[in-house]
Amino acid sequence: MSFGMIATWRMAYEGVVKMTAELAKGVTANQALVEAIKMVEDYPYYKSVGFGGLPNEEGQLELDAAFMDGDTLDIGAVAGIQETKNPIVVAEALSHERFNSFLVGLGATKYAKEQGFEQQEMVTERAKRLWELRLEEVQKNNLSPYDGHDTVGMISLDQAGKMVAGTSSSGLFMKKRGRVGDSPLSGSGFYVDSQIGGATATGLGEDLMKGCLSYETVRLMGEGLSPQAAVDQAVYRFNDKLVERKSKAGALSLVCMNPQGQWGIATNVEFSFVVATETEAPEVYIARPEGNRTEIVVATKEWLKAYDLRIKKPLS
Amino acid sequence: MSFGMIATWRMAYEGVVKMTAELAKGVTANQALVEAIKMVEDYPYYKSVGFGGLPNEEGQLELDAAFMDGDTLDIGAVAGIQETKNPIVVAEALSHERFNSFLVGLGATKYAKEQGFEQQEMVTERAKRLWELRLEEVQKNNLSPYDGHDTVGMISLDQAGKMVAGTSSSGLFMKKRGRVGDSPLSGSGFYVDSQIGGATATGLGEDLMKGCLSYETVRLMGEGLSPQAAVDQAVYRFNDKLVERKSKAGALSLVCMNPQGQWGIATNVEFSFVVATETEAPEVYIARPEGNRTEIVVATKEWLKAYDLRIKKPLS
Repeated sequence: MSFGMIATWRMAYEGVVKMTAELAKGVTANQALVEAIKMVEDYPYYKSVGFGGLPNEEGQLELDAAFMDGDTLDIGAVAGIQETKNPIVVAEALSHERFNSFLVGLGATKYAKEQGFEQQEMVTERAKRLWELRLEEVQKNNLSPYDGHDTVGMISLDQAGKMVAGTSSSGLFMKKRGRVGDSPLSGSGFYVDSQIGGATATGLGEDLMKGCLSYETVRLMGEGLSPQAAVDQAVYRFNDKLVERKSKAGALSLVCMNPQGQWGIATNVEFSFVVATETEAPEVYIARPEGNRTEIVVATKEWLKAYDLRIKKPLS
Repeated sequence: MSFGMIATWRMAYEGVVKMTAELAKGVTANQALVEAIKMVEDYPYYKSVGFGGLPNEEGQLELDAAFMDGDTLDIGAVAGIQETKNPIVVAEALSHERFNSFLVGLGATKYAKEQGFEQQEMVTERAKRLWELRLEEVQKNNLSPYDGHDTVGMISLDQAGKMVAGTSSSGLFMKKRGRVGDSPLSGSGFYVDSQIGGATATGLGEDLMKGCLSYETVRLMGEGLSPQAAVDQAVYRFNDKLVERKSKAGALSLVCMNPQGQWGIATNVEFSFVVATETEAPEVYIARPEGNRTEIVVATKEWLKAYDLRIKKPLS
């Protein structure tokens, strides 16, 4: 059998490199995905996921995550969880519960504490400084405060043919307390069925949930479309519908994979993603919309270097 | 143009009676739906929605609600909101926000307070007593505590051809703090597109969100299926899939309507619902699964009387 992983954004690269090597040795899709997302959550310079994520308007870091099992369709999710080192681990654990598998706010944080999941202060000094700088900028220039919503979303396929999906996010920078985007929402932020394939999203959650784009992408693969044709149709048709109904569409970016390890991606903004399969070495790609199709290129060394400098840029 | 409303459970009857009369006079789908759901939220004997709803395992009443506009696809939702008289009113207000339109937990409660939405102690003496009795029963008989999850879900169509969807629920009785079901989740608990139709769900939220059944029902109507054929296909195919994958399926009940006021309903349990349209007087119906089709009968006077006695039964 084939194996593979696809994930949103450059930040997933290290986890995909490490865990596709493990998939090659036979680890499960669950282990590969959870471990790879943990690596993103733990890295302090990724400012939209886990430790080092950017706080809400009150300065608290509230995190969302979800896990879906493509064999059983079981889902676990948390939203607005605080002080919990790895929200993806809590979401995976909740996916084994028949009841109470999606917990939010204080209830989610309490569950994580009581069940012994690792607790940690999650707001870094750097995140706090970025938050202060943004507040000043917003006040000075009378801007909308909302910016940045880079969820790590991932699909993993193991050699037994099992597929899982997962997401982890600190949500919209400067969000209101308790704001939830698409990341923990089935069908919007993620969907997977091992017999068909999986999809996961990043972008403006408030718009992504209007279209249930992860479910729609998987459904179209189930009708026989290739992953690329499925995700192109789901994303660009819905983008056009939003523009028609509301005259604008927020960022919508989706990646998907089928049980053969074939993959697809569509986006209405410039967007980076990571893929590795049995036959394709791990690579960071850049995608751009080109009419109602997607242009995909391998990220250059210059792009990767500029990215690294940008995320670690010293702050004033 | 036609008009109409369809809603889950007997409890929606009074609101549908009152507000279809208003739709006949030209009120908007928004007004009709919000007012009809408010009536369910305000009635103390409906123990799964709003005032008088049943508490979580800690004795707190946490409420979920959502509103979707079928013209713009805008969504507003709250989950785990407390001490707020009408969660549906807050959800409708949030649907006008481009960002932060889904709020959970303390953030949702805080927003409702700050925006001046009516606050109220929501746990009634009767709900508290039912909670105590359930605790005793669970301890004595070593039962699973979880029982009861009757969301009011509603679709409304006005004479201008606009459709909206809404839900309101106190969720699973004895749920863990922060537990969220399908009710506030787009595609699972509700979905509506004025050009196609709307659908809304009630049942075991943890299973409903595995199938995105409201989205799927609307999508099938969009492919040209009648509302009844669409909802039959969505519900029974997914029920079969869950039984195949997990050997069991929780309660799944959906109602739907199209812009012509034609409607459909499918369920894998016995289930009551309410419909009224331009050409059909308000009526309570009982539905039962019959193979992979749905048997629908008008609720008898005896059934309605027994219902009324049951919800008002004196407690020991």
